[in-house]
Amino acid sequence: MASSFSPEKARVPPAIELPVPPVSKFKIGLCQLSVTADKERNIAHARLAIEEAAEKGAKLVLLPEIWNSPYSNDSFPVYAEDIDAGTDSSPSTAMLSEVARSLKITIVGGSIPERCGDKLYNTCCVFGTDGKLKAKHRKIHLFDINIPGKIVFEESKTLTAGETPTVVDTDVGRIGIGICYDICFQELAMLYAARGAHLLCYPGAFNMTTGPLHWELLQRASAVDNQLYVATCSPARDAGSGYVAWGHSTLVGPFGEVLATTEHDEATIISEIDYSLLELRRTNLPLQKQRRGDLYSLVDVQRLNSQ
Amino acid sequence: MASSFSPEKARVPPAIELPVPPVSKFKIGLCQLSVTADKERNIAHARLAIEEAAEKGAKLVLLPEIWNSPYSNDSFPVYAEDIDAGTDSSPSTAMLSEVARSLKITIVGGSIPERCGDKLYNTCCVFGTDGKLKAKHRKIHLFDINIPGKIVFEESKTLTAGETPTVVDTDVGRIGIGICYDICFQELAMLYAARGAHLLCYPGAFNMTTGPLHWELLQRASAVDNQLYVATCSPARDAGSGYVAWGHSTLVGPFGEVLATTEHDEATIISEIDYSLLELRRTNLPLQKQRRGDLYSLVDVQRLNSQ
Repeated sequence: MASSFSPEKARVPPAIELPVPPVSKFKIGLCQLSVTADKERNIAHARLAIEEAAEKGAKLVLLPEIWNSPYSNDSFPVYAEDIDAGTDSSPSTAMLSEVARSLKITIVGGSIPERCGDKLYNTCCVFGTDGKLKAKHRKIHLFDINIPGKIVFEESKTLTAGETPTVVDTDVGRIGIGICYDICFQELAMLYAARGAHLLCYPGAFNMTTGPLHWELLQRASAVDNQLYVATCSPARDAGSGYVAWGHSTLVGPFGEVLATTEHDEATIISEIDYSLLELRRTNLPLQKQRRGDLYSLVDVQRLNSQ
Repeated sequence: MASSFSPEKARVPPAIELPVPPVSKFKIGLCQLSVTADKERNIAHARLAIEEAAEKGAKLVLLPEIWNSPYSNDSFPVYAEDIDAGTDSSPSTAMLSEVARSLKITIVGGSIPERCGDKLYNTCCVFGTDGKLKAKHRKIHLFDINIPGKIVFEESKTLTAGETPTVVDTDVGRIGIGICYDICFQELAMLYAARGAHLLCYPGAFNMTTGPLHWELLQRASAVDNQLYVATCSPARDAGSGYVAWGHSTLVGPFGEVLATTEHDEATIISEIDYSLLELRRTNLPLQKQRRGDLYSLVDVQRLNSQ
């Protein structure tokens, strides 16, 4: 019966079958870091947290959005690093590369302000267990928000938006990357799922208004709708900073269940991911076979054009 | 800047501008009804609840999924009514029509099993303040689910799926209709929002497994992603029935905030909808202008083909 509804057409191009992940069970570490105005301290501090997570068994470590710099349009140009110019020009990513290689772990390196020519980006670097840069995601949806009396921010004053979604194959599975506001656009998560992602990682610094309303909600919805794992990592809250982060880094399973979370203080969460649950949940609720491609379809423009 | 990202292309055809609703503020009533095996009692009972809601000021009343019959594949054929044959053949919708007209309210009549030729559907009828049938939504996504030891159900054993999304203009705004499992497919909500819906109504009988995990989550996510109101209505829980409903009928605002909800017992919720908040939230978070139509687009197949 289902075939007359063309479920395969609900994604264009059709969804890729979930690849067999290189590992079924492993531990993930979410490092909810305190961030200061002292970049050197931030780098050393992040290194310690990553080392601590790896000691506790984490094979994948996720860092927060903008962990080497205060989160402000004034700071982005000052703290930005030229990632493409190599590790000499980018002490933050140099540290990540070196730690990933020496600890033989995968690092989804939160994000830092990136300088490229005359442009600035909010950029997440993914390092493999050999210390090599495997992917670089530039925040696609800039955070321009205006809730008077609550939160007003305009990233587009200083930053340029990324031009491409990012899915990367790592030793701990296929990971789709988004940064903070990217999570508000469920189309991106749907597109990553159709590309065969096992896990979505969102470094993100939600605020005290949208944090309590939307942060956990959007993670859980992304996980349930797409039947995959979602991990998020926020900076710790600093009530004295110009931008007060919500915190609450979280790991969500493919049924939308919160597997591990924390409050707003600095913390490292260690939790287990079990990819065998992906197949189980997709059998329990066979959404992929039940979608109505005769009524709607989500087009992945770049994947379509690359065919 | 945004124009280079072609936000208008994120929906195909482009999203319709939100229509000015015929009313800005009004009360909605959600009648979480107990349902028995006695159809006549169910109809009389629903009538009383609707009258009570109208007395309390509700201009729109929403009923639960399958409110005139037990929820089971055995019952659907027995309780089904031929809606198209007119009110003589359909006592359940005859009551809805008569009450809507006499009370001058809009009724989104939950759902009942519908017989049409040799087919059965799970169908929601919408009646206007003149008592006329304004729209009929047949559940698009049938509830075929298999969580061993928890919940196994296969609606497709007896029911046929609907062939079209349903958006209806009423005296209380433009309403998109889904039934229960339809809410698990966010594409439908996105499509309704692009058609200019102010409010989505989901009669739904989630169960004791997916209820606590997904019911409120999916409503809130639909509201936030699409920046509109979402109202749901479940049957009251009957622990002795073959299918135990979760209850928890709810009204959610366009920021994903739960405005009114209830537990699992029979209850009528009266709460206020204020459509002026739709414009406000869309100004606060201008998602529609920030979507990346250069990277993804959601196609509304029937609206596209009708152009």
